[in-house]
Amino acid sequence: MTGSMTSGITIWAPDGAPEISDSDDLAAVLVGLLGDDGLLDGDIVAVTSKVVAKAEGRVRAGDKDAAVDDETVRVVARRGATTIVRTRHGLTMAAAGVDASNVASGHVVLLPTDPDASASAVRRRLHELTGRVVGVLVTDTAGRAWREGQSDIAIGAAGIRVIEDFSGRADPHGNLLVVTAPAVADEIAGAVELAQGKLGRRPFAVVRGRADLVLPAGDDGTGAAALVRAEGADMFGLGSREAVVRALVGDPDDVDLYGRPAPAEELAAVLRELPGVESAPREDTVRVTTADARAAWAAGVAAYAHGWEPVPGAPDGVVDLRPSRPLT
Amino acid sequence: MTGSMTSGITIWAPDGAPEISDSDDLAAVLVGLLGDDGLLDGDIVAVTSKVVAKAEGRVRAGDKDAAVDDETVRVVARRGATTIVRTRHGLTMAAAGVDASNVASGHVVLLPTDPDASASAVRRRLHELTGRVVGVLVTDTAGRAWREGQSDIAIGAAGIRVIEDFSGRADPHGNLLVVTAPAVADEIAGAVELAQGKLGRRPFAVVRGRADLVLPAGDDGTGAAALVRAEGADMFGLGSREAVVRALVGDPDDVDLYGRPAPAEELAAVLRELPGVESAPREDTVRVTTADARAAWAAGVAAYAHGWEPVPGAPDGVVDLRPSRPLT
Repeated sequence: MTGSMTSGITIWAPDGAPEISDSDDLAAVLVGLLGDDGLLDGDIVAVTSKVVAKAEGRVRAGDKDAAVDDETVRVVARRGATTIVRTRHGLTMAAAGVDASNVASGHVVLLPTDPDASASAVRRRLHELTGRVVGVLVTDTAGRAWREGQSDIAIGAAGIRVIEDFSGRADPHGNLLVVTAPAVADEIAGAVELAQGKLGRRPFAVVRGRADLVLPAGDDGTGAAALVRAEGADMFGLGSREAVVRALVGDPDDVDLYGRPAPAEELAAVLRELPGVESAPREDTVRVTTADARAAWAAGVAAYAHGWEPVPGAPDGVVDLRPSRPLT
Repeated sequence: MTGSMTSGITIWAPDGAPEISDSDDLAAVLVGLLGDDGLLDGDIVAVTSKVVAKAEGRVRAGDKDAAVDDETVRVVARRGATTIVRTRHGLTMAAAGVDASNVASGHVVLLPTDPDASASAVRRRLHELTGRVVGVLVTDTAGRAWREGQSDIAIGAAGIRVIEDFSGRADPHGNLLVVTAPAVADEIAGAVELAQGKLGRRPFAVVRGRADLVLPAGDDGTGAAALVRAEGADMFGLGSREAVVRALVGDPDDVDLYGRPAPAEELAAVLRELPGVESAPREDTVRVTTADARAAWAAGVAAYAHGWEPVPGAPDGVVDLRPSRPLT
């Protein structure tokens, strides 16, 4: 492959990693595992957030729900058993990245407190032990909007350019690449997952072939924090239904969002409790009658919270509600 | 690296690909480029959607906007110059994946009509030419919710398991892996982008080391269509503000969504045009007065369309509006 390896990368994940526990020296463990496969300058080392957290004592006994609440800044979307939240790191993840797998039964593993700092510490220690200048990523598994399945992403980084910015560069045809900015650190994290697998206890991996992304010793770069879209800058900062409720009343956490429409009788009963609102089930709808604009807002909120929406074209002075179409 | 290469992968992207045009035999081009680096059974071949589209004649002269409209099923979110849509393939992408880069100036490249069929054709042809049983991915670049930068994803696939489902499998601690389902085809697409780069004209790549994902000859599997979350099954099927407008009136395409709040005078003028609605700017708000519930809904829609939201605690019979907080 010599000729084309100029544009190739190699990833390997050493077998035989020991169970990691509090205060373990992850860099030393990795160097021991690599054996003859030593690190080279420009290699990129990936470590799962799971073992980083274990080495930092971020393991808790029991009660996943309490741990999720502690790690959550706000709820992004909730349906049934699934809760997607924004964490203190700014990550949007199911269950705030709290994980009960690959840990002793009855325990949960939290995300590292500061994954960029964790990556920086591993990078410095690898340099002490090997003299090599490498980049370091801390990886975790996240779901995505719009796509099935999960992909590993970089939640921590040190000494690596996490985004390649081609803005203003030209392609071979002379067209400017206006918005192309590959999130290379996330692509590396996904590639590493392919080499590690989920069942093989391979928390470490080495990526060789993109030394151009690795920064000089002493320069840790932006960290993975630069991959997090700022709060308020995202068009998808709330689930669709949460956005409706939040827009009308405030905090969707205050509203119990049904996964599917509530029974008509139940909805009508809820609406009748609102001041100035009359409500009754009809054939396929629930009719709301109110002369008060604010009461109409409140009825709308309650309706959305219960999976109902207004039917266009109702008579003046009333709102007819029908089960919501999916907010796609 | 022999010991640990059992859990390693290698990716290379051959240099020197010619400009691809209509009716070119992509499989033959790749085999020619690989030279001594022949394919092995279990290899995974990735081809960018750009060259697949070019080989299928999916190139158009001029007017990107018209091309985007033709490829769009519905608008997902629109802010300023950015339009994110759901394509006929079910893909959620900026500009419907229509691309004006790496193509002759003044032209645009559309996505392949049926990327899974494209992948299947390349797979069959590679088998004819080499006798090898490989998996084939068609890749493209997509933005993500919540994360900065883009990542390559698999929009077409043939002969490869696109999602690894570990549901019900146990980790080494005996914990069931309930929801873990790595989208390996997307992770491979991202890994391939790392080897190809965006400027080097390397539309092909070969991934070696995950033969376990490759299906027998004649079995193309689910294709990349299995990676697309079904319409109506996604909590993020609309931008937050689009969700509010859609929930209140129907199609956000009908409403011109401001990226930031409109001037108060402009909003008040719009609202006064609604039947039964009085509206006037006040110190920091715009007051809407209406005795008609449906008029209140309409005012709410207009307000959201213009980047305004109701202030909690207004007097009975009125709605006071303020510039919307970001719908995060």
